[in-house]
Amino acid sequence: MSGTTKGLQLRSLIKKSGELELSLAEVPIPEPGPDQVLVKVEATPINPSDLGMLLGPADMSTAKALGDGAAKQTTAKVPEQALPFIAARLDQAMPVGNEGAGTVIKASSSEAAQALLGKTVSMIGGAMYAQYRLLKATDCQPLPAGTTAAEGASWFVNPLTALGMTETMKREGHKALVHTAAASNLGQMLNKICQEDGIGLVNIVRSAEQARLLRGIGAKHAVDSTSATFTEELTMALVETGATIAFDAIGGGKLASQILTCMEMALNKTAKEYSRYGSTTHKQVYIYGSLNTAPVELVRNYGMAWGVGGWLLTPFLQKIGRPEQVRLRERVAKSLKTTFASHYTKTVSLTEALDLANIVVYGKRATGEKYLINPNKT
Amino acid sequence: MSGTTKGLQLRSLIKKSGELELSLAEVPIPEPGPDQVLVKVEATPINPSDLGMLLGPADMSTAKALGDGAAKQTTAKVPEQALPFIAARLDQAMPVGNEGAGTVIKASSSEAAQALLGKTVSMIGGAMYAQYRLLKATDCQPLPAGTTAAEGASWFVNPLTALGMTETMKREGHKALVHTAAASNLGQMLNKICQEDGIGLVNIVRSAEQARLLRGIGAKHAVDSTSATFTEELTMALVETGATIAFDAIGGGKLASQILTCMEMALNKTAKEYSRYGSTTHKQVYIYGSLNTAPVELVRNYGMAWGVGGWLLTPFLQKIGRPEQVRLRERVAKSLKTTFASHYTKTVSLTEALDLANIVVYGKRATGEKYLINPNKT
Repeated sequence: MSGTTKGLQLRSLIKKSGELELSLAEVPIPEPGPDQVLVKVEATPINPSDLGMLLGPADMSTAKALGDGAAKQTTAKVPEQALPFIAARLDQAMPVGNEGAGTVIKASSSEAAQALLGKTVSMIGGAMYAQYRLLKATDCQPLPAGTTAAEGASWFVNPLTALGMTETMKREGHKALVHTAAASNLGQMLNKICQEDGIGLVNIVRSAEQARLLRGIGAKHAVDSTSATFTEELTMALVETGATIAFDAIGGGKLASQILTCMEMALNKTAKEYSRYGSTTHKQVYIYGSLNTAPVELVRNYGMAWGVGGWLLTPFLQKIGRPEQVRLRERVAKSLKTTFASHYTKTVSLTEALDLANIVVYGKRATGEKYLINPNKT
Repeated sequence: MSGTTKGLQLRSLIKKSGELELSLAEVPIPEPGPDQVLVKVEATPINPSDLGMLLGPADMSTAKALGDGAAKQTTAKVPEQALPFIAARLDQAMPVGNEGAGTVIKASSSEAAQALLGKTVSMIGGAMYAQYRLLKATDCQPLPAGTTAAEGASWFVNPLTALGMTETMKREGHKALVHTAAASNLGQMLNKICQEDGIGLVNIVRSAEQARLLRGIGAKHAVDSTSATFTEELTMALVETGATIAFDAIGGGKLASQILTCMEMALNKTAKEYSRYGSTTHKQVYIYGSLNTAPVELVRNYGMAWGVGGWLLTPFLQKIGRPEQVRLRERVAKSLKTTFASHYTKTVSLTEALDLANIVVYGKRATGEKYLINPNKT
């Protein structure tokens, strides 16, 4: 970077007028302050959790592209009724990208920062869709020798979400768990974790092919929600595992309620005495994604000991505290080529990330269609 | 009771064949064991929470009565698809009635039991729809001089549910609360408690008349869900009170979701910075009733920090422990003629409780239609 004083950073702006504008800003490359390092970003994934910031509630069927190279812009319309819910971000160009990896090219004089100089590190903290990222040494995770930036880019969101599920299960007193849209990258990771840790896992998928895929990687319970005997199969798997907590990526529709109903049926099969309010065992569904944006429908034929709620990684990490976070992070860094490996369909530059043809693909949030950005790709 | 050796007890039986059978059993009057007392039951309410045990999921439009006096029976059909959910109670005649009050007519030799002899006491523990009830002295609450059994009958379910709401609000870190179907007996109690304790309360009712009723007893916020400006009025009341927890007696439909949406709008009005996942303040709706048995519909335009779940008095009391329970009980006993007063439309005998004409009325669970049973009414 000799002579380079500026770098590109992707920005997402939603105007009060209801227009989304994606652009690349040229920003000065900062000098590391105390305990900080400067990282040349070489790999940063486009996760479903990034799309909320990147595209917001914009209607991408109205998207248009203009300009070229660093001057490129992509715009789209945001429905007016969605604006009150994002009032706090309106008219501010927001940087994007939760996680990434790259090479530490400058470091402050502190021991912790100096130890990272020249190393390949994984990072968390936002604004990763940029050529350079300044951050605290403690927000970097040094990678084992031989692990590349591309391999370390998706080290945080999916791996810690999957670990967060099994940790939440334990902390809330459940002994096995259910996962939906379970053939996803995250779902496959969760299967590997549960196999390593001896945790019962009921995978719910949306096709017989996805069920076969999961059985192929060792899943014991993979139930297809399109099967005519879905609820019977799910109840059987719940009886066998004793799962009373579910993590649901789908959200909309009847699935969350079906899971609670089947949990109640499974509990009643083994109940010793009648409770007029249904089973007294708490049954929980956490919704962490929204693949189906339709309303959640809860029929409530599962007594009173139930809960449905949002689940998000950041508050979970805040709750468990730093030492526990470090333990989980180190587990991930050690197994980035195995348990926590991610797969990408395409690697794009920052400019290419604004291409309509690419947005159409990564904006779909489809299982198995994951993009990686290399902001320094030329 | 000289010479009397048996008493009547109401029983609810649901047979595997799908038939509900209500009847009166003649049971021997037991002698108090260690620390026990025998109470002649003089008043016991029919609460919505009793109807689940009494009528179960029976279709009361199919109800038939046969026999007379103590031999009277009422039967009705239970839909076949409901049977798996009540498997544990099938073919067992269940006693009914959560709470009641009466006179202690026999007591064991223990000091605590002897102290209650001749006293009017309130009771909790089930099987109250009976002429006599044997129970532990500690499950009795002696009433202040001048408080009648009828005044003390509804001392537990409604008063402790209302107190349980404000206690849950405090324990879960909220500063004000929302209540639906708020013109109910319970809702009016909750208004009095919140006024006494200086707690912000947003009442949601289903007519302008009910809103006026609540304002008449001092409610500051009474919002009518049938009003054209309901969501605006609710949001305003949420901004003013800061309420982020709701207790919902209705359950089905869109109301729980509307409350969460308005809470999110209220929080966003005062938000200092944009969070891509919506407000980070946890928003909670507890469903404790089911006036509308339709599915709950959750639209999820309120970020990720939300929860919806069942709420029930018994697990709440188990969680807070005995000393805290005693504190709440004593608060109730002191104010049974004021804050915790209940009103009844009719007092019936055990036989009359099986009359179809009465079941039609109390089975409706309508606001302001509450029945009291006097099992010793002749």
